[in-house]
Amino acid sequence: MSNFIKTLPSHLIKRFHGWKATAFEENKSWYQKLASQGQHPRAMVISCCDSRVHVTAIFGADSGEFFIHRNIANLIPPFKPDGDHHGTSAAIEFAVLSLKVAHIIVLGHSQCGGIMNGYHYCKGSQINDEFIFINKWLDILKPAYEQLPQSNNNDQQIKILEKESIKVSLNNLIEFPFVKKALENNDLVLHGLWHDIGTGELEMLDPDQSAFIKI
Amino acid sequence: MSNFIKTLPSHLIKRFHGWKATAFEENKSWYQKLASQGQHPRAMVISCCDSRVHVTAIFGADSGEFFIHRNIANLIPPFKPDGDHHGTSAAIEFAVLSLKVAHIIVLGHSQCGGIMNGYHYCKGSQINDEFIFINKWLDILKPAYEQLPQSNNNDQQIKILEKESIKVSLNNLIEFPFVKKALENNDLVLHGLWHDIGTGELEMLDPDQSAFIKI
Amino acid sequence: MSNFIKTLPSHLIKRFHGWKATAFEENKSWYQKLASQGQHPRAMVISCCDSRVHVTAIFGADSGEFFIHRNIANLIPPFKPDGDHHGTSAAIEFAVLSLKVAHIIVLGHSQCGGIMNGYHYCKGSQINDEFIFINKWLDILKPAYEQLPQSNNNDQQIKILEKESIKVSLNNLIEFPFVKKALENNDLVLHGLWHDIGTGELEMLDPDQSAFIKI
Amino acid sequence: MSNFIKTLPSHLIKRFHGWKATAFEENKSWYQKLASQGQHPRAMVISCCDSRVHVTAIFGADSGEFFIHRNIANLIPPFKPDGDHHGTSAAIEFAVLSLKVAHIIVLGHSQCGGIMNGYHYCKGSQINDEFIFINKWLDILKPAYEQLPQSNNNDQQIKILEKESIKVSLNNLIEFPFVKKALENNDLVLHGLWHDIGTGELEMLDPDQSAFIKI
Repeated sequence: MSNFIKTLPSHLIKRFHGWKATAFEENKSWYQKLASQGQHPRAMVISCCDSRVHVTAIFGADSGEFFIHRNIANLIPPFKPDGDHHGTSAAIEFAVLSLKVAHIIVLGHSQCGGIMNGYHYCKGSQINDEFIFINKWLDILKPAYEQLPQSNNNDQQIKILEKESIKVSLNNLIEFPFVKKALENNDLVLHGLWHDIGTGELEMLDPDQSAFIKI
Repeated sequence: MSNFIKTLPSHLIKRFHGWKATAFEENKSWYQKLASQGQHPRAMVISCCDSRVHVTAIFGADSGEFFIHRNIANLIPPFKPDGDHHGTSAAIEFAVLSLKVAHIIVLGHSQCGGIMNGYHYCKGSQINDEFIFINKWLDILKPAYEQLPQSNNNDQQIKILEKESIKVSLNNLIEFPFVKKALENNDLVLHGLWHDIGTGELEMLDPDQSAFIKI
Repeated sequence: MSNFIKTLPSHLIKRFHGWKATAFEENKSWYQKLASQGQHPRAMVISCCDSRVHVTAIFGADSGEFFIHRNIANLIPPFKPDGDHHGTSAAIEFAVLSLKVAHIIVLGHSQCGGIMNGYHYCKGSQINDEFIFINKWLDILKPAYEQLPQSNNNDQQIKILEKESIKVSLNNLIEFPFVKKALENNDLVLHGLWHDIGTGELEMLDPDQSAFIKI
Repeated sequence: MSNFIKTLPSHLIKRFHGWKATAFEENKSWYQKLASQGQHPRAMVISCCDSRVHVTAIFGADSGEFFIHRNIANLIPPFKPDGDHHGTSAAIEFAVLSLKVAHIIVLGHSQCGGIMNGYHYCKGSQINDEFIFINKWLDILKPAYEQLPQSNNNDQQIKILEKESIKVSLNNLIEFPFVKKALENNDLVLHGLWHDIGTGELEMLDPDQSAFIKI
């Protein structure tokens, strides 16, 4: 292993020292409190790994506010307690059972490379065989893909899929027994959001679920 | 589903509009460029879901800089191409093969609820049977747990485990064939970091790997 | 020519080998990526040649972040497509049309030898006739000089000129047709900054442009 | 103008405050001295605007060491005292006559977009008519272009041109009367360097000028 572990790039070291001497220093008592008393986040956010979408920025969030799981295309797989390693399911379980968050927000976005790859994978076009994990992961999109209207071109389909997949994830989420229980006890509510990177717009899955509407 | 999907809390809607009118408006041209020309992040960061650790803050990162996967306890499972849904492996695959990031940073932290649970799970003490996914997920910690010195008390062991688990994750990472290839081609380097929430310190896995050292 | 080309001073050769063995070695994969995939800088910076002002330090910038043009007194001449060699205009053209940067930052500074010379040149006092290129170059300052209040002493006037010249440069910049177009399309925004070498302060031209304000 | 001037992106403001609280604070006395006693750089560097080549990094340079002019493709135009705005010539004049630097270093580099555009412009292939200033600026390359061997393909020619253009710039430089005088008085020496972005290598124009050699 030794040859592959390297010193952190110096610009990051400098930036860290800058953060430490300013933002950290100014908020020290808050960070100390977070360390000694633990986190009490109000919401869990399931967001994409994409470097262009940072939910803390969009909502001006402070340390301690959001428990954030980020995966490719912000997907929630179906409930499957088969004893395998399920990182997303484990994160949801921790948020609901241990942290008892009051909200779970699924945040999708435009120009999502995951959704685009998943679309072509589901369609059977442009499959990249190198992507053994990505292809399997994007399999989660299938129920959403299958509900797409037939008449559109690829770009239109992908745009619809970005939003439909959020509904599929929310549907999967509700099937987790501990989520269902929290929802039924009014301990938890769910939200679906879609963010347009280029225009900055945020759309919300309308509670009546007919559509995403601008907020 | 309908009863559980709710309108976003109004304080978040207000904050979003604040971000849109200020930070987004002022950086519009950058966001437009990110949307039209895609992301070119320098590094992937594998970080914890913990609401107290946001890597973009610590490094003053710009939109587009870090591709971020967040899971419980910032773990990387062993390579296991079994056709199941592996969100972490898919994220790594996307970062290395599609985005061709130059760095993967595994960022651990103090007071990690995941590590604490994992410690007790590995030890066989305080097992919470409700946690079906968490327990299985934290199984990844076992090789690190087994190397812990015997003489310490629980708190000391957990503190050591927080750092040892980063080494285990890095070792697992190197076993992914596409990661190995990128490392051997000098297209990729790895970094291990551990952050102390309360004191703000950042420690780095020394390239000779004998220990974590303050930066 | 031969007699005037010399071997690089050995302290620089040694420092280069130091950089090569450390910072380069540790960031090799990033440099390889920058070489093979090209640069995607977010911003162009127009800064002074002055050895005391390095913008990459002030902003903890990574390789690949800023496209930097440096000339005497960080000036932008008026748009003049006369077929002559215009290095500054060429750099701006490359940044806007080829790299499509999202920001242009004009960064001025205190104790600027160029501004001081330009002040005396515009005033007609202390003209150094040896400076055929410098005098002509500093001619660009005239519109800023002419707006100076009359009642101050030289030192006060020069301090004002350091900031007023940034406004003149920004005004010249907007007259470049390709810049204007990018601005009107929201593909580009402009920033004026002034840095105090001795105190380290940074002032920003307020968006309402009444004044420079400390950030 | 007002609509196009914006607040600086917040990540840069944060990073500046970080630099101010750390690197600046630690070197305050040096910065204060630089402010009150002026700059005394040993060398002038003429380098490219390219975001991937920062000479201060490569030579571990401190504030006050290098007076740096950066233009597209690190070119020096011929001496032409015609009363027009010549930014590069003004910078050289300031460095030699006012700062009396002891070295001028022309630093070229691999993968230079300016050289590539200039090659195609000189060849008459792939001329981008939008580039009114760039094309004219790259005209300076013509004497170097005309000496290229005929038998190579474009990529090979461009690689040779990257280095030959450094010789042309140095030849132009010597024709500036004040440079010539300083050279003849042994007050100044010249250096030609070429940097490979991907491999990190640095090559130096051999004093006997037969070739660039690795240092």
